[in-house]
Amino acid sequence: MTAKIIGEKLAEIPWEDKPIGHEFPVWRHSENPIIKRNPVKGISRIFNSAVAPFEDKFVGVFRAETINGRPHLTIGWSEDAVQWDIQAESINFEDEDGKPFHPKYAYDPRLVKVEDTYYIIWCTDFYGAAIGLAETKDFKRFVRLENPFLPFNRNGVLFPRKVNGNYMMLSRPSDSGHTPFGDIFLSESPDLKYWGKHRHVMSKGGHGWWQNVKIGGGPAPIETTEGWLVFYHGVTGTCNGYVYSMGVAVLDIDQPSKVKYRSLNLVLTPEMDYETTGFVDNVIFPCATLHCAESGKIAIYYGSADTCVGMAYTTVEEIVQYAKDTHESVGDDQELGKI
Amino acid sequence: MTAKIIGEKLAEIPWEDKPIGHEFPVWRHSENPIIKRNPVKGISRIFNSAVAPFEDKFVGVFRAETINGRPHLTIGWSEDAVQWDIQAESINFEDEDGKPFHPKYAYDPRLVKVEDTYYIIWCTDFYGAAIGLAETKDFKRFVRLENPFLPFNRNGVLFPRKVNGNYMMLSRPSDSGHTPFGDIFLSESPDLKYWGKHRHVMSKGGHGWWQNVKIGGGPAPIETTEGWLVFYHGVTGTCNGYVYSMGVAVLDIDQPSKVKYRSLNLVLTPEMDYETTGFVDNVIFPCATLHCAESGKIAIYYGSADTCVGMAYTTVEEIVQYAKDTHESVGDDQELGKI
Amino acid sequence: MTAKIIGEKLAEIPWEDKPIGHEFPVWRHSENPIIKRNPVKGISRIFNSAVAPFEDKFVGVFRAETINGRPHLTIGWSEDAVQWDIQAESINFEDEDGKPFHPKYAYDPRLVKVEDTYYIIWCTDFYGAAIGLAETKDFKRFVRLENPFLPFNRNGVLFPRKVNGNYMMLSRPSDSGHTPFGDIFLSESPDLKYWGKHRHVMSKGGHGWWQNVKIGGGPAPIETTEGWLVFYHGVTGTCNGYVYSMGVAVLDIDQPSKVKYRSLNLVLTPEMDYETTGFVDNVIFPCATLHCAESGKIAIYYGSADTCVGMAYTTVEEIVQYAKDTHESVGDDQELGKI
Amino acid sequence: MTAKIIGEKLAEIPWEDKPIGHEFPVWRHSENPIIKRNPVKGISRIFNSAVAPFEDKFVGVFRAETINGRPHLTIGWSEDAVQWDIQAESINFEDEDGKPFHPKYAYDPRLVKVEDTYYIIWCTDFYGAAIGLAETKDFKRFVRLENPFLPFNRNGVLFPRKVNGNYMMLSRPSDSGHTPFGDIFLSESPDLKYWGKHRHVMSKGGHGWWQNVKIGGGPAPIETTEGWLVFYHGVTGTCNGYVYSMGVAVLDIDQPSKVKYRSLNLVLTPEMDYETTGFVDNVIFPCATLHCAESGKIAIYYGSADTCVGMAYTTVEEIVQYAKDTHESVGDDQELGKI
Amino acid sequence: MTAKIIGEKLAEIPWEDKPIGHEFPVWRHSENPIIKRNPVKGISRIFNSAVAPFEDKFVGVFRAETINGRPHLTIGWSEDAVQWDIQAESINFEDEDGKPFHPKYAYDPRLVKVEDTYYIIWCTDFYGAAIGLAETKDFKRFVRLENPFLPFNRNGVLFPRKVNGNYMMLSRPSDSGHTPFGDIFLSESPDLKYWGKHRHVMSKGGHGWWQNVKIGGGPAPIETTEGWLVFYHGVTGTCNGYVYSMGVAVLDIDQPSKVKYRSLNLVLTPEMDYETTGFVDNVIFPCATLHCAESGKIAIYYGSADTCVGMAYTTVEEIVQYAKDTHESVGDDQELGKI
Amino acid sequence: MTAKIIGEKLAEIPWEDKPIGHEFPVWRHSENPIIKRNPVKGISRIFNSAVAPFEDKFVGVFRAETINGRPHLTIGWSEDAVQWDIQAESINFEDEDGKPFHPKYAYDPRLVKVEDTYYIIWCTDFYGAAIGLAETKDFKRFVRLENPFLPFNRNGVLFPRKVNGNYMMLSRPSDSGHTPFGDIFLSESPDLKYWGKHRHVMSKGGHGWWQNVKIGGGPAPIETTEGWLVFYHGVTGTCNGYVYSMGVAVLDIDQPSKVKYRSLNLVLTPEMDYETTGFVDNVIFPCATLHCAESGKIAIYYGSADTCVGMAYTTVEEIVQYAKDTHESVGDDQELGKI
Repeated sequence: MTAKIIGEKLAEIPWEDKPIGHEFPVWRHSENPIIKRNPVKGISRIFNSAVAPFEDKFVGVFRAETINGRPHLTIGWSEDAVQWDIQAESINFEDEDGKPFHPKYAYDPRLVKVEDTYYIIWCTDFYGAAIGLAETKDFKRFVRLENPFLPFNRNGVLFPRKVNGNYMMLSRPSDSGHTPFGDIFLSESPDLKYWGKHRHVMSKGGHGWWQNVKIGGGPAPIETTEGWLVFYHGVTGTCNGYVYSMGVAVLDIDQPSKVKYRSLNLVLTPEMDYETTGFVDNVIFPCATLHCAESGKIAIYYGSADTCVGMAYTTVEEIVQYAKDTHESVGDDQELGKI
Repeated sequence: MTAKIIGEKLAEIPWEDKPIGHEFPVWRHSENPIIKRNPVKGISRIFNSAVAPFEDKFVGVFRAETINGRPHLTIGWSEDAVQWDIQAESINFEDEDGKPFHPKYAYDPRLVKVEDTYYIIWCTDFYGAAIGLAETKDFKRFVRLENPFLPFNRNGVLFPRKVNGNYMMLSRPSDSGHTPFGDIFLSESPDLKYWGKHRHVMSKGGHGWWQNVKIGGGPAPIETTEGWLVFYHGVTGTCNGYVYSMGVAVLDIDQPSKVKYRSLNLVLTPEMDYETTGFVDNVIFPCATLHCAESGKIAIYYGSADTCVGMAYTTVEEIVQYAKDTHESVGDDQELGKI
Repeated sequence: MTAKIIGEKLAEIPWEDKPIGHEFPVWRHSENPIIKRNPVKGISRIFNSAVAPFEDKFVGVFRAETINGRPHLTIGWSEDAVQWDIQAESINFEDEDGKPFHPKYAYDPRLVKVEDTYYIIWCTDFYGAAIGLAETKDFKRFVRLENPFLPFNRNGVLFPRKVNGNYMMLSRPSDSGHTPFGDIFLSESPDLKYWGKHRHVMSKGGHGWWQNVKIGGGPAPIETTEGWLVFYHGVTGTCNGYVYSMGVAVLDIDQPSKVKYRSLNLVLTPEMDYETTGFVDNVIFPCATLHCAESGKIAIYYGSADTCVGMAYTTVEEIVQYAKDTHESVGDDQELGKI
Repeated sequence: MTAKIIGEKLAEIPWEDKPIGHEFPVWRHSENPIIKRNPVKGISRIFNSAVAPFEDKFVGVFRAETINGRPHLTIGWSEDAVQWDIQAESINFEDEDGKPFHPKYAYDPRLVKVEDTYYIIWCTDFYGAAIGLAETKDFKRFVRLENPFLPFNRNGVLFPRKVNGNYMMLSRPSDSGHTPFGDIFLSESPDLKYWGKHRHVMSKGGHGWWQNVKIGGGPAPIETTEGWLVFYHGVTGTCNGYVYSMGVAVLDIDQPSKVKYRSLNLVLTPEMDYETTGFVDNVIFPCATLHCAESGKIAIYYGSADTCVGMAYTTVEEIVQYAKDTHESVGDDQELGKI
Repeated sequence: MTAKIIGEKLAEIPWEDKPIGHEFPVWRHSENPIIKRNPVKGISRIFNSAVAPFEDKFVGVFRAETINGRPHLTIGWSEDAVQWDIQAESINFEDEDGKPFHPKYAYDPRLVKVEDTYYIIWCTDFYGAAIGLAETKDFKRFVRLENPFLPFNRNGVLFPRKVNGNYMMLSRPSDSGHTPFGDIFLSESPDLKYWGKHRHVMSKGGHGWWQNVKIGGGPAPIETTEGWLVFYHGVTGTCNGYVYSMGVAVLDIDQPSKVKYRSLNLVLTPEMDYETTGFVDNVIFPCATLHCAESGKIAIYYGSADTCVGMAYTTVEEIVQYAKDTHESVGDDQELGKI
Repeated sequence: MTAKIIGEKLAEIPWEDKPIGHEFPVWRHSENPIIKRNPVKGISRIFNSAVAPFEDKFVGVFRAETINGRPHLTIGWSEDAVQWDIQAESINFEDEDGKPFHPKYAYDPRLVKVEDTYYIIWCTDFYGAAIGLAETKDFKRFVRLENPFLPFNRNGVLFPRKVNGNYMMLSRPSDSGHTPFGDIFLSESPDLKYWGKHRHVMSKGGHGWWQNVKIGGGPAPIETTEGWLVFYHGVTGTCNGYVYSMGVAVLDIDQPSKVKYRSLNLVLTPEMDYETTGFVDNVIFPCATLHCAESGKIAIYYGSADTCVGMAYTTVEEIVQYAKDTHESVGDDQELGKI
């Protein structure tokens, strides 16, 4: 059965056809990186960032590192989702009482629309690295909500709709440093305030070595006829540091802590100069997709070497098929998850 | 104002008066340890365990290490709360569907009665160290509930009543190993299923060195006229390993993430042979109290050197006064807690 | 079937009957430690040492630490195998060409008689920790042979007879420091000069935690009607260091890389003052046995806290039965061993 | 005296003359890398690989990393030893009983012809990193032999002929991780089954810093009139990881554990883009040579940045002279080797 | 007030005007690197080096790494301070008694003229990394003086004149390895022989992350009307290693342990190929300036990726203004310094 | 030649004769520890402390750890140098301007009289562990002087008289943590304000293992006819932590960076319960002596297990002779010390 995206048409999705003879199911945008070093006055590097369609154009929430090296979140706008007009100043959050909220640092945002609200999920400082959450409807007013989890956690990814009546969030429990381990978990909430029913989703490891140190969620899951399509990052260790690649899996549509398919193989790994060399060498870190339910096209946005933003393409048919064809079950991926 | 315990009378509380000339606010039971090595056939060491009054006697949930060194939980009974009759076999939990549940390991239990139900909170294996939760009403049937939090976490301590309509739990976010850091946090739940409103309560550190590596909750908080009385463990590091001592604090009765008083000084530290020497040298690890609202007497149960169980005494008046007199505010202990 | 030792009668074996009510299959000598601190002028500590019957008395090869803390090997003699007359000076080895050989350091000796020759196997300096080998027939002339293996290795244990025509040696590949891992392997040699057919025997780990960091061979295997009876040490890690306990297993008589039985439980663990406290706290390290084929009695010599020598007793019937009764197969212990 | 290679003529050796003005004794092939990223469908990276003349063409054994990042060995063929036709599928080994053998992983192969048999030596999984050994005569049937040594070991290099009637192998005892130390040892075997007479050959260190962390053997030694010519890798550590360079030494022809000459200087170090940047930055890792006894030409194959294969040239006269001219004796390199 | 350099005119200072539209206060020389790999026969890399005007030309003291990777100091000469003629041989120091002195290694030199004498300050081996000191008047005779401080220390920087009658030196106390911490201190000496009045100057950390691991002094301070202008390096840590950037601060002219202004932002960070890739990726390490009191021009020399030498430009007006405009006070930077 | 102490008679020195048959040159006080746990209200542990004769009694400067575990310095008085009356409150230092000075922490004091002034040298917080210095003449007013050295340093020991016109101080450069390395250095000062002429004195290591991790100075050197008699601590590492023993050396009287004699053997090592067990197991840490020039008696005060104070005895004749008899030169101990 051919996989279809369940959702809306997105005619304006950026796109390039697969190069002739290209053997992999994901291919790079030919003009990468789309956002380069020092893209805006006062900002040295933008990477690990998220985008979404909004009204008749595109909006992005960007990890922007200032000249002094501190990461914060900023908003940008684009007509074509390739050329971005990015604000230099940080997002001005307010808390639920309307008071200003300025996180000490903020990085690796995801941007997810659930019903009529956009949610930003990022890594925030809560006496250590933890997951921050905020909502906006208009990208003018941003209301910061309760932190869903205790520290130490990173790579929070909200699902684009409720499942079984609950909000669902992936996350990657961590430690207080560079975390040499890590699996992906799922948690539920009836109200975005209280979270529970924590389940294990996917383990690092498997036959391949590319994801044997840790893994973490990427873009918001894409609903398909085959299940939730998730891109994620997998990390291996070498004597000279970590290498971050992109993997793909399909989660059960009603019980997303069950992995239906998970590709044994990475689908994108640092090979281009802008991926192998930068502030952190050898990093591909996907954070967002644009996708079109009609055409099945998927554009993936990924941070590159903690320095710039790259884009890559695939289609839902091809990538889901690849996950099936190269499927490998790791640990108890296919269970509901021990608790 | 003299502090009073809010709660019930417990006439049968074990007790010894403070020795003449003893200068500290906590004093040891004269016949420590009350549970020694190899206390029961098949069990090598019992320590870090919790007790409670039940009907006309006392019940305990014990960290029992088998001869092969794996920790599990077992039940014991006592007439006087000093001599214990402990079962060799582990607790047989069932899950909410009535199916048997056997944790791979289980350690450092707390036992807390809320309304008419007893809750056991312990450190369980959830793809790493995490907090387990179970309930019983009769100590015959034990129903395991959802894990409240994602890993990695330890030292979960439930409050003995709801606050502002919610269950409240202390915990100490950790890493996947021997965790060289750690503060105490508070989380809330309307239903023991979903948890949120996470707040920071107390930081490691302060002027003294005895708690400069990490801290973790101990017995269930005792409700007093001055606030929630909490005993906790504080850890310092030496070139030859950690030293675990006992500290005391009083939390705001309605906003328990605020520390009202916190003793600059430890109130018990390893000094006796059975505390300085054992499976893990230099550990005092309090996990439970018995206390009497009428007399103000408090009997504290603590694990000793990861090998045996000791008991110590204080009174609510003396210990709360000591916390006030030696009060030190660390970090933002006295705030509601940044989120 | 009741296990019997295959071998010689040893009427003079030191012995104490099992204390009434003692629940474990191994019990301590009542006058432990048999060798205490500063046993001989110039020697601070003797521990981790081996003994054997020789002519009409007993001979021992001892790990002797000088006042300056350097370990070497020395010889001792005893009438009763309990009271030892130990030489202060080191063994004077010569090499195969008759030239003097003085190892920079030498520790943890085993002493094994094969046919009419006694072999000493110890940890020697070969550009790092490695296994040394020497032979003697009269305990006057000691000829040092080739090192069997490349570094880094420790805990070499020779079998007391050839198996399938080859000499057999257990060892524990290590790293160059305190080695936080380690399994037991078996190697063969036709001539004690060239070694090969390396097989994995036993893994650290299993259900119990007492042997979850590393394991290492102990006394020379005892031939029994059930297989080779081996005592070994298993190590667990705590936040304050390692704990060394003694375990027991039975290896296949013809294919000793197959484990027939292996006790889930440790059979001796540090509990006495002289075991929990010393130069290295919490160490029980068995290196030798005396045993009698007629009576089935076994006297086990073990190093205690890297400070002194203890002795414990069991019988072949009881200990083999215990290994059977508590059997646990770990990893691929029961295979020939992947290569 | 000018050094000559002892052995066969190899007229078809790939070759480029030394560039005018080039000051070093080794120079790169002008079209490096000869094997690039994604060289074959299903294989992401080929590096650290070995080649040999076979019949009227060339054969290679390659470290091939699959898309999922797991290394295995594969065969390739070439007419000119520069353009390679490499098989995607792994070598199908069988064991000595004719049963299939598939190593969990296999990397860093060497390929050595002794008498009429070709031997592959690689790093295999034997309860940790160890040296694997196989033989073939026709590159169709590959028979896996006993592992020569216990773990942990890497960089096994067989000599191309017996010395004093025994097979000889270099190796580098290691630990179970990224090994921050390591010297080269020599071992002997009468039958490739049992190994002994282990000797230390060369130490890391010396006056230069380029080899102060560890060293390891490279291509099979080349027999010359001056002794065994060996290329090896030396590793230094920086705050941002290891740097692997190539060194050169000449070993005594009859007692190869004695170093006759050893160049103080490295002879090739990462300087080109394909050497400084890749999956592991800054790696030059030589594994094979082709050489011609008539012309004295030597072509060296080396892995580059764990990503691709480079080639470099020298002549026996020049390189041996360089080793003599820049000779430095490190540690007890020039002894037979303590045991 | 516009800052002016106090000192001499240097008409021959190398210079390029700021590129149009360049937003940062420091800009690179357009032909960087000015010294490339293998610049001189026998020397592989020159970086982290210092220059000064001398008579009618320029002199430099260079960190030269030999082919064998050992760093030493060598002298070079230049007419234009861009093209350098560098000696292959090391500086021949003598000690105060006229005996030859050859440091085992020597790296990261600074070169400072005080009154009529030139001082070389470098990292030397004094039972570990420590600060070496030597003087010359003619660059022919170099007299090595006492080491100012105990080990472990690096990045010693002498002031170009006495302050309050004493010589002043910045340094960065370190550990014996790659030092994951470090602040800048100031020490005084009446005679360059005895040192004291040690004061803390600047802390790592602050709001930005670029200097949150350690900081260290760079070129000799430049006397200005606003205080001592200092360029320094700040280091951050990533999962793949350190990143070294350049910062700027202005110290009080009479009490240089007080920081008047310190830029929140780095002023140069690795972005060019020759800075992000090399022997040590991602290093910018400033060691010297040339500057002209009349024009206010400043040419900064910096080591690039531990591989080559780069040059950058600014003016005293612009850079001091930038430090003021972006001022951030870290820790007790603005105090005299606790002692 | 028999060694004599140069200095004053001290008739009231505490003393016990050497036990009959005692084989070592140092013997313990029979009533050790002389200061036990909780010696004074508010103080938990006193150890690593120094004493001196003052007027007609004895004065001590003590490392006192408060109940909260923070070390500070306090004064005590004694008639017999065995029974001590110790003040609970810390020393109130003032700085050279007469303003109060309260170090954040202060530990491991030494107390040395030079001419008519007493100097206290301790480990103080100077942006990390460093050496603090203060003077007093009457033990009523304590004036804190400049810190002699940059951090990180510990175990500063002043000589009891100037040598060659300069004050002399031993110290042990360290790192910012538990320092797994360390040698003893000597520095000079004309005025206690500026320090220089740093020389290496003694290396860790040697044939024995007891001092192979680090060493550090102990009591003030005792002037004898054979040179400066120094007791020091040497540390070895085990898998369960460090062991601190006491060693002895004699330094050249005029060039104290030269070691004349240094005992291969330790002279006191943890063997008694109060030495092997406590807050830090297995520590003997000598900080002071009393000695009598007439009788040659020496009483040594040492910290025991970071918990209490022990005393031991020797005579100058016996201990100097022992250093000679067991002399071992380590590294370049006997040189003036490379700089």
